[in-house]
Order: sequence, then C-alpha cells, then structure tokens
Amino acid sequence: MLPTDHLQTVPISLGDRSYTIAIGTGLLGDPAVFQDVPQASSAVIVSNTTVAPLYAQRLAGSLAGRYAAVHQVVLPDGEAFKNWEILNTIFDALLGHACDRKTVLFALGGGVVGDITGFAAACYMRGVPFVQVPTTLLAQVDSSVGGKTGINHPLGKNMVGAFYQPRLVVCDLDTLRTLPDRELSAGLAEVIKYGPIADLAFLDWIERNLGALLAREPAALAHAVKRSCEIKASVVGQDERESGLRAILNFGHTFGHAIEAGLGYGEWLHGEAVGCGMVMAARLSQRLGLVDASFVRRLTDVVRRARLPVTAPVLDAEDNADRYLALMRVDKKAEGGEIRFVVVDGSGTASMRGAPDALVRAVIEESCALTTV
Amino acid sequence: MLPTDHLQTVPISLGDRSYTIAIGTGLLGDPAVFQDVPQASSAVIVSNTTVAPLYAQRLAGSLAGRYAAVHQVVLPDGEAFKNWEILNTIFDALLGHACDRKTVLFALGGGVVGDITGFAAACYMRGVPFVQVPTTLLAQVDSSVGGKTGINHPLGKNMVGAFYQPRLVVCDLDTLRTLPDRELSAGLAEVIKYGPIADLAFLDWIERNLGALLAREPAALAHAVKRSCEIKASVVGQDERESGLRAILNFGHTFGHAIEAGLGYGEWLHGEAVGCGMVMAARLSQRLGLVDASFVRRLTDVVRRARLPVTAPVLDAEDNADRYLALMRVDKKAEGGEIRFVVVDGSGTASMRGAPDALVRAVIEESCALTTV
Repeated sequence: MLPTDHLQTVPISLGDRSYTIAIGTGLLGDPAVFQDVPQASSAVIVSNTTVAPLYAQRLAGSLAGRYAAVHQVVLPDGEAFKNWEILNTIFDALLGHACDRKTVLFALGGGVVGDITGFAAACYMRGVPFVQVPTTLLAQVDSSVGGKTGINHPLGKNMVGAFYQPRLVVCDLDTLRTLPDRELSAGLAEVIKYGPIADLAFLDWIERNLGALLAREPAALAHAVKRSCEIKASVVGQDERESGLRAILNFGHTFGHAIEAGLGYGEWLHGEAVGCGMVMAARLSQRLGLVDASFVRRLTDVVRRARLPVTAPVLDAEDNADRYLALMRVDKKAEGGEIRFVVVDGSGTASMRGAPDALVRAVIEESCALTTV
Repeated sequence: MLPTDHLQTVPISLGDRSYTIAIGTGLLGDPAVFQDVPQASSAVIVSNTTVAPLYAQRLAGSLAGRYAAVHQVVLPDGEAFKNWEILNTIFDALLGHACDRKTVLFALGGGVVGDITGFAAACYMRGVPFVQVPTTLLAQVDSSVGGKTGINHPLGKNMVGAFYQPRLVVCDLDTLRTLPDRELSAGLAEVIKYGPIADLAFLDWIERNLGALLAREPAALAHAVKRSCEIKASVVGQDERESGLRAILNFGHTFGHAIEAGLGYGEWLHGEAVGCGMVMAARLSQRLGLVDASFVRRLTDVVRRARLPVTAPVLDAEDNADRYLALMRVDKKAEGGEIRFVVVDGSGTASMRGAPDALVRAVIEESCALTTV
C-alpha cells in the first residue's frame, strides 16, 4: 500500500498488468512511495543531462535501502536523441553493470526519457520491470501513463516500440517547479486535449484555471494531472493496444506528427505540435460538419492562451500540402495509405475517420496562413 | 481450418495468443495453409540471400491472392548479422513500402531470420502480425516456436528482444532437402535436447533413428519435428515468459552461449554450441551427483553420432575457465551475478540451479581437453 498523507492515486486497471499512478508533492524523496516495486539486486535510474543533476540523487536516496546497487545512465536531452543510437547506450550500460532479468529501470525525466527507457525495459533480456518518474507536465499527464514506449525513425515518430506497462508511475509535482515555461505550455496541450475528446466540463475548468496553471499553483496542477490521468486510465483500460477507442488520445497528433517530422524532431516540442495539431483537427472537424466555427474559435483561444502555437509551419515552400499529406500517410494510424484523423463533435466525444484530400489540403493551407494575434 | 491431407498440426495454447504449428510437405506452395492469417493490404517476406532464391517465389505465389502487395526483404545470411544494423534495414524497408499496422511479416529462413523478423514484427508500430516459415531443422524444432524473438549484443546473445508470438508456424519438410549437412546436425542438437529434459523414450527413438535422420528420410524428420514441437508446446504453454519451467529448454545453452560469444557469433553454429554445451551440462550434472558416468557417455555418444562437436573450444589460452565464467555471468538466466544452469537427472526431467565455481571450472577444463574419437 502506498502512503496516502501527501499523495493521490489513480489506478490503471489492466489485469495482471495493472498499476498505480501516484500524484503529489515530496514523492521522490520518500522511500515508502516505492515500496511495492519488485525487489532485485540492482536498479538503474535512466535520466538526462538536464534532469539528472536536479533529481537523480533524491531518487537514488529513496531507492538505496531497497537495491544493493543503484546505477545511473544519463542521456543527452532532447527528442532528437530518441533513437537507436541512444537506446543502445542504455543496453551497453545495463550489460556493463551485469544487470539481470530482475533489474528495475526507473525513467526519470520527460517523455523522451520515459519512452526510450520503457522501450529499453521492454527489450532488455526480453523484458525487465520499470517505473515511470515523469518530471515534465506532458509526461505526467500523458506519455508516462498507458504503456506506449518507443523510439523515432528518420521516416516517422514512434515507429519502433512496444506496448509495455510500468509497475508504478510517480508524478512528483515538485519537479514541475524547475520546468521551463515553454515545456509547461507543451504539457498543457495534452491537458487541454482531454477536454474536447472526453470531458467538456474539464475544458471549462481549464479555461477558468489557465492563469493558475501557468502560474504553477500546486492545487491547480494537482487537479489537472489527476483528471488527465483519470481520463487516460479510463480510455487505456478499455483498449490497451489501441485497436480502437484508444486512438482518440491522438487528437491533434496526426497533424502534429507531420509538423514534428517535417521540421525535424526537436525543432518544435511535441506539445507545441499537438497544440497546433488540435487547432488543425478542429478545423477539419468543422469542414466535415461536426463542429461549428465557435468551437474552433474556443479551442484555438485556449491553445493560444496556453502560449502554444496556433499557426502551422510551412514545411515545403512549393508543395506544402503534399508534404504534410506524405508525412501523415506514414502515421501509425494510417491503413493501406489512407490517413485516419481523430475528429471531435463538440460534445466531448471523439472518433476516427478518413477525410477527402481536398478538405485536408484546405485545412493545411488555412492553418499555415492563420495569423497569431 | 487448415487443410489436413498433407500435414500434421501441433497446437500452442496461449489464450488469445494461441496458434498452430503446421508440419508437412508441399506447404509453402499451398495457399490454403495460410488462409487463417490476418488479411491486410500488404505482406512482407523477410528472408536471406541463401533461402530467398530457393523458396521466396514459392511463398510469394501462395500469398499473392490474399495480399494486394507482397514485398520482399533479403538479409545477409548468418548469426553475425542478427544485430541492430540489419534490424534497422527491415524497418527501413517497411517504412519505405508504407507498411501499416496490419501488414503481416513472414519470416522465411532459419533461426536468425525468425528471431530478427519476429522482433521487427514485435516493434514495428508497436506490433504487427507475423508468421514463422522456418526452413532449417533447428528453426522448425525450436526457435520458430514459442515467441522468443530478438537480436544479439556484442556483450551477449539474444540480450535484446521480446516475447512475441507468431500467428502461425509453417514447417515445410521439403525445405530441409537443401539444408547443408552441418546445419542438419545443428538442428539435431535441439532435437536431442528434448530427450534428456522431457522424454527419455524420445531419446531412445532418436538413438535408433539417427541414421534415418541424417539420411533425411521424410518420415523420420516428420516425427522428430512433431515430437519436438509437442514437447516445446507443452513447456511454453505452462510458462510463456520463462519465469520458471521454460528455462529447461535452455539445456546446454548456458555453456553453448559462452562458446558462441567467446569464439565470436557465427564461428560455431548455434546448434553445434548447444550440442557441446549439452555434454558439458551433463558433466556438470554428474559432478553434482544427479546422473552417473554412463548417462554422460550416452549423451556424448548421441551428440557425436549426430556429427556435432563434443570437445569444447579453448576461449583463452591463459585464463580459459575465467573467460567461460565471465561470459556465462551475463547470460540472461544469471541472477545477481550467479550463473544458473539447467541440469538433468537421467530420468527425463530437468531443473535450474547454481553450482560452485570450482565444479564449473573442472567441467570446463575436462571438456576442453576431451578427445573426440
């Protein structure tokens, strides 16, 4: 049982792969938080050059009583490093430390660290236990929950990976204090996402509390993280391997992935691309007759107020829409070359569908020309 | 339902990951054999430079009516190519052909092709369906069944991989006609393995039929493949992810992996290393008081008669036993630095245990000095 005085928990129900999300303050430094994680002779904290100096010692201290050896692997920071080469440095370290099949990996950092560490855990000796310790808002509300792990390929984001569930997710809100403003906003993109796809009342709450969230008020952050995780837990619990429903969590991501791939990974933050991608997906929903202009305006406003881009980048001066379409055709949701979009209906539900190229082209041209005020 | 006039089937019971092993002649050229494999817009046959010219067209012909596009990826042949670089060439090809989440991969070849293709299927877009079409005896009786996939790391064999089950395994005995003698013997090592760990009557049968097997008599091969798959299916069905029982299938593999890694992958065939490793494991079992000298002699004789090495190679002229021990300590079965061996008791059952270094050293020295007659 986790201690309950300084944290809230959200359960993820996936049969024998079920686990708990712990949300609160002071968690990294509390050994009791980790008391249900499997024992082993060694643990490995995987982090990056930005986060490790801030938090790795605190986490290592909490694990010292439980594991005879606590090793650290420090990766370079950034989406550009979510690749084979860096993944291999994790395997090199694990083998260099003679880590075995019971060794527990701890992913301490943002989405990149979580995705690549989770994939390393999925593959090392065909699977070792791992724990997500997300230190960015984006990772706390989205990427650390649900078991999607992986790396990027030059031809597409997250093209290589595994569904592999962590044993525990620890969201220590204290770590958000050191988060750069730009990354806070990127995380808010994924928070905002849960409104249009699942809970319009939550969208109302976000609109009312956006100032408090940007000011990093702990109570506001705690609610945003908890409600986001609850919605994600509900969706993932119904469709762990994304055979259907789970795909709605990718609202804004089809356009967003094209932006990230087209500009080169790392140019825009993932959350920035998703923020802009949601505006584009809302515009597509409007052109398909699912929402009206006022809903598009509402979503555009909240994205902009979260200090996220609402104007799409031009990816190719001559054939911009073609470039977007080509990039979206290799999206994982595409089937037989048909791009599948997550669209919303304005009542807090979302669905997947294809769309005529002409409509998609119009959305791309309109979104690239849109003026930020 | 599979056609039954020219094949036998062995079911693998793993809940929603259950599948069938089809064993027979003329299977590659029969579209009906593949009728239960999921449909998709494309299929990809992954093979190697040796096997593709012999059998890829035959398989492609059987798939042509079911998939609009049947692509081929041809890898270089050999254990030395079971690595990241070659795995990435599969991903490059899949993305280059715009393969989606429903694309079915067909692994046409031996253990290397099966392991790397299975791992590619496990990881591509976090998992696509795949079919094993093993064309070597070793792959038909062992590596294609049970869902172990992966690649090697310079510091250890199969260190990176996944448990990922195929949708179907097709063992076409016709493909064994073109198998080099050395690979036929390597496959017999894994056939022999099933006797001491699970079925002494099968060991008797092998001893009586070794001549027929070496002469590639179809009826003998069919029985050897079927009985081997039945034993493996039974073990895997009880312990899919190797938390216990399944490890007995690694009889001879702890020593064998050290031989392969110490000589450099590809120097000895996997089955050759396993053959010699079984002799070493039998000697260790004897030193632990589990079997007598006559059992060791019996196993040594059948391994030798199968034209497999029974003398272990010297891996280091000065510190040979240390080198073996260091290589075995990174074996996946090791825990906290303790090497775990599969030992046999002479009655057709096996178990896992550690052993004092002194005993292991004695086995290594004795096995390296043993004279082949």
